[in-house]
Amino acid sequence: MLLYNAPVSGNCYKVRLLFAQLGIDCERREVDVFDRSDRPELLGGLNPALRVPTLVLDDGRTLAESDAILFYFGDGTEYLPRDRFERAQVLQWMFFEQYSHEPYIAVARFWELAGIHQSDTELEAKQKGGHAALQAMDEHLMEREFLVGERYTIADIALFAYTHVAPEGGFTLEPYPAIKSWLTRVAAQPGHIGINSD
Amino acid sequence: MLLYNAPVSGNCYKVRLLFAQLGIDCERREVDVFDRSDRPELLGGLNPALRVPTLVLDDGRTLAESDAILFYFGDGTEYLPRDRFERAQVLQWMFFEQYSHEPYIAVARFWELAGIHQSDTELEAKQKGGHAALQAMDEHLMEREFLVGERYTIADIALFAYTHVAPEGGFTLEPYPAIKSWLTRVAAQPGHIGINSD
Repeated sequence: MLLYNAPVSGNCYKVRLLFAQLGIDCERREVDVFDRSDRPELLGGLNPALRVPTLVLDDGRTLAESDAILFYFGDGTEYLPRDRFERAQVLQWMFFEQYSHEPYIAVARFWELAGIHQSDTELEAKQKGGHAALQAMDEHLMEREFLVGERYTIADIALFAYTHVAPEGGFTLEPYPAIKSWLTRVAAQPGHIGINSD
Repeated sequence: MLLYNAPVSGNCYKVRLLFAQLGIDCERREVDVFDRSDRPELLGGLNPALRVPTLVLDDGRTLAESDAILFYFGDGTEYLPRDRFERAQVLQWMFFEQYSHEPYIAVARFWELAGIHQSDTELEAKQKGGHAALQAMDEHLMEREFLVGERYTIADIALFAYTHVAPEGGFTLEPYPAIKSWLTRVAAQPGHIGINSD
């Protein structure tokens, strides 16, 4: 398989992390996340959103959107529950991540890493949205070890990716003790790799 | 079951549409999408994102995020393929909708409906993102009857919801003939209801 990948992207890291834990090998083609001018040439015909991660399977079929890739490869493994309601809860947290978490925390981090200057109003809006997402996670995790079903699942992978680097986007995790304990538990899972590991 | 619902919300409409097609009844409690001050009181403890739709099942368990609800109720019906890869493709389009489509088209429509004035820069950014999403859908649909597997699925429900009302957000659909044909096909499905139907 071939993964169109960016090392800095939390969305790509989700896929690399699950693959490491499942022992799945794949080739990588690195894609620039700062200069996106070659995206139509690279990803046109493979992914309508022209984003990474984009995965080309061995038979040439393609799959995109980090959380759809996690669901596909997690299915049938210990990382995705078999119970229909728990599967829906996993999806609930993954949609929460893409709609209520990533657009604030990942985007603020991207601006920092890319050195993109934004107005105070825009930075404050990102802080507000990001902290609302962190607050929601923290409350949920106060009574739980993991997000769904008291087991480590792809929902934890999906939320770990950008939460553990939230400080790079200017978000302190100090007010969120339940998140901090959960990050430690996720990082202690067998086969865990860091976002910067090869 | 009890659905926390807003009539104007495309995300809630997705659930109402699938339920109509599956013959599922549920009570509704209407939630204000313009004044959100009572959200913590209404939805606290039910949905960490404090959004609609939020669904309370008969046994008291709750499920949120429109597309997670579609997946849960679509599973085992004709509206969600059984094939593992096709299921992942359905999810790919649903994540595309929530990340690359809804934040532009639904938000621009919401601003219009709520009479919220935004700067030209912000309106242009919404137009640009929304048209990129529509362009991607149109190219995909040029060679297909439906988004995934040549059958009507919950992916079509997810994308239909805000695409068919995109003109209310200032998006003309004239440049997208494949989308226009697809909208007609989706609206002709057995049991289809409109966003304003009871």
